[in-house]
Amino acid sequence: MERITLSHGGGGIDSRNLIDSIVEILKNPTLESLEDSAILNISGEKIAFTTDGFVVKPIFFPGGDIGKLAVCGTLNDLAVMGAKPHALSLSLIIEEGFSRDDLSKILNSIKQTSGETPIVTGDTKVVERGSADGIFITTTGIGVQLPNAKPSASKILPGDSLIITGSIGRHGAAIMAKREELGFSSTLESDVAYLGDMLLPMFESIGEDVKVCRDVTRGGLSAILSEFAHSSNVGIEVFEEEIPVDTDVTGICAALGIDPLTLACEGRALIAVAPDQADKALEILKRTELGKFACVIGSAVSEHKTMTHLITGIGGARILEPPAGELLPRIC
Amino acid sequence: MERITLSHGGGGIDSRNLIDSIVEILKNPTLESLEDSAILNISGEKIAFTTDGFVVKPIFFPGGDIGKLAVCGTLNDLAVMGAKPHALSLSLIIEEGFSRDDLSKILNSIKQTSGETPIVTGDTKVVERGSADGIFITTTGIGVQLPNAKPSASKILPGDSLIITGSIGRHGAAIMAKREELGFSSTLESDVAYLGDMLLPMFESIGEDVKVCRDVTRGGLSAILSEFAHSSNVGIEVFEEEIPVDTDVTGICAALGIDPLTLACEGRALIAVAPDQADKALEILKRTELGKFACVIGSAVSEHKTMTHLITGIGGARILEPPAGELLPRIC
Repeated sequence: MERITLSHGGGGIDSRNLIDSIVEILKNPTLESLEDSAILNISGEKIAFTTDGFVVKPIFFPGGDIGKLAVCGTLNDLAVMGAKPHALSLSLIIEEGFSRDDLSKILNSIKQTSGETPIVTGDTKVVERGSADGIFITTTGIGVQLPNAKPSASKILPGDSLIITGSIGRHGAAIMAKREELGFSSTLESDVAYLGDMLLPMFESIGEDVKVCRDVTRGGLSAILSEFAHSSNVGIEVFEEEIPVDTDVTGICAALGIDPLTLACEGRALIAVAPDQADKALEILKRTELGKFACVIGSAVSEHKTMTHLITGIGGARILEPPAGELLPRIC
Repeated sequence: MERITLSHGGGGIDSRNLIDSIVEILKNPTLESLEDSAILNISGEKIAFTTDGFVVKPIFFPGGDIGKLAVCGTLNDLAVMGAKPHALSLSLIIEEGFSRDDLSKILNSIKQTSGETPIVTGDTKVVERGSADGIFITTTGIGVQLPNAKPSASKILPGDSLIITGSIGRHGAAIMAKREELGFSSTLESDVAYLGDMLLPMFESIGEDVKVCRDVTRGGLSAILSEFAHSSNVGIEVFEEEIPVDTDVTGICAALGIDPLTLACEGRALIAVAPDQADKALEILKRTELGKFACVIGSAVSEHKTMTHLITGIGGARILEPPAGELLPRIC
């Protein structure tokens, strides 16, 4: 009998295959688009709607906790679609024996992170000891998409510029360091952050020339590059030397033999913009603290469709494959 | 250190206390109303928004499965607010080793139950063997509330009639029979069903005279009666002989020493209506197969505020307390 494996949750090819099989059963055009939020037309308003489950382990990690991660992750799925957040829902599944103090800490973190976006509805279930692992959180967000925001992974054209909003892999590296108790420097904190204050002004200003925007999570940058190349049927070229990776992340990756391009971020976006708008986009992104290291890392090309080429420092090129299976279970 | 217990998930007083402590941290007026759906005003439209986690055990039970339960439960939280469903989201947390065939069965059940309401967005996480129990599902629903629907648990006035739409406790009894392998008759199936086709015509016709409507789930009828009495600061009188309980449910309750008034339903609603609209409401409910046994079971009174009195067959009265703690873990 075929069974679910951890690699089905890793954000790579196996995850994609599982999701495809789910979509095949539930199919409808909105779901099939596989964007970060569904866009619903209700009385002429473009309502963005997104949901995410969070099972991160450990639940408290350097730079955040499962509550902050849940709120940022869900609000970011609205933000990358150019949607202003309106409200959140919160569904908790708690294991019997979980500490009330830890629950309060997580709820306070949710309250603080959600800021002006209210948690308007929720649900709480408790399961027997051993039937869950501490706490699982599912958050769902509703937002209103800006009128001129129309991002889609299928809209990239050859020549479009690819922008990353900051250094990659900090979340994955921080979780890994904490979990393995590697004793790495305390500077290694998750990048978990809300992206809307950085991204929404860009959508407001550039509108449809923002072809697509994704928060880089499970599967890391290589998974998103692969998704972009496939969805738009273009080739992609990125320059290894342009991709920002902090030295503490490089260090843990070298120690553990992991490619930082496959490590999750929780506060970074990859953006494709029309080439003549790249400077404008960068200028807007860099106005914010979160986006001050935003940079162009490459572009879409008309050759090698669906494939991403990584141009190395010495001028060589290697094909960048999306991660296949499990990288790091329960990264988010 | 204070810890979460199973009784915090049971739907009784302990659940209510946990929820109160959560709301206290996250507080905002919409959340504090604790209705089954939040009502959001977006561009003049009344958008209903609700979320629910499902951890039912076993995941396949007589009359349904976790997928059908999730869709009905979420759509019902829209329906009881007088909202037409627009879209659903689906978040899955799956234990490593879960059967792909069972996942397909559940997804097909979700597809079939959701009917014309599309699943427009979703998320899938996989956790290690032993870190969850099979599959947990969180569904979130968006609907549009009918213009003249304004139900709220705080609107009941003395004299208002209380209507139950069918016999109580079938879901809880079916789960219990299956779980305990009691070998009860195969007629004992869950009542899990979508309530909207029955309830929405009533909201359309009677409008604001539907004071409040709740699907009767965790904690059973006694939990909802207690909630109504407290939220509206009225007394409630219900007549034991008028409350429909099927004989197979009575049988299992007698065998296990359980009060059917505390057993969950998943396809029944309790409705408070203005007294002069009770006949009209019953007439509309009875037009549907699901509502053909709808009946008045009592009314709100100005005496014994916040208390529910159960008038017994021999004319006596006993105070109906909401269930305190754990009844039956993982009933939904």
